[in-house]
Amino acid sequence: MSFKVKSRIWIESETGVFLGEGRVRLLKSIDECGSISEAAKDLEISYKKAWKLVKSMNESSNQEMVMKTKGGSGGGKSELTDYAREAIRFFDSINKSCWKALEEQMEGNPF
Amino acid sequence: MSFKVKSRIWIESETGVFLGEGRVRLLKSIDECGSISEAAKDLEISYKKAWKLVKSMNESSNQEMVMKTKGGSGGGKSELTDYAREAIRFFDSINKSCWKALEEQMEGNPF
Repeated sequence: MSFKVKSRIWIESETGVFLGEGRVRLLKSIDECGSISEAAKDLEISYKKAWKLVKSMNESSNQEMVMKTKGGSGGGKSELTDYAREAIRFFDSINKSCWKALEEQMEGNPF
Repeated sequence: MSFKVKSRIWIESETGVFLGEGRVRLLKSIDECGSISEAAKDLEISYKKAWKLVKSMNESSNQEMVMKTKGGSGGGKSELTDYAREAIRFFDSINKSCWKALEEQMEGNPF
């Protein structure tokens, strides 16, 4: 048998989950697509779910993460704030260093 | 707002999940209680679920994790192998060092 270590990290603020892998994926997709509704299609989740996640991120952080830039019946246009971009960078960086550290430690596994 | 980082790690072998927090909790309880059925009661899970988890761990590792020491209608007596004790120690150790590293990195968070 060979063994692999897996991990999942997430960040909570006082109001609950703020950022996790799914939320970061959604933010990146909003950044690429320029709208929440397109990002929802891209990730195969409902617009309602995507919108709720964005609302939750906006409410559980110190600054807005996703800004509406244009209204519209199809959900309009949205873009990430600089704060959100910084948050994604930080999340990806600690996530990656967590994986790396765990993989290194797994080299000494007793299994 | 203040932010906390959370993590969950698990170890997979070729046949699927081998060890995770829940499985380690079960092993520790079997160690304390001396039987799978008592451990199941302790953790408020069904005997069937506990037994399936033990079976899965035994089958996805290189050595047996839990040994039956005495049969019986109530599920008999069981104990951990040295291999399982070593596995728990390793899991707890990398889990703790993962938490510690993440907490240290969170000190530089941009949120």
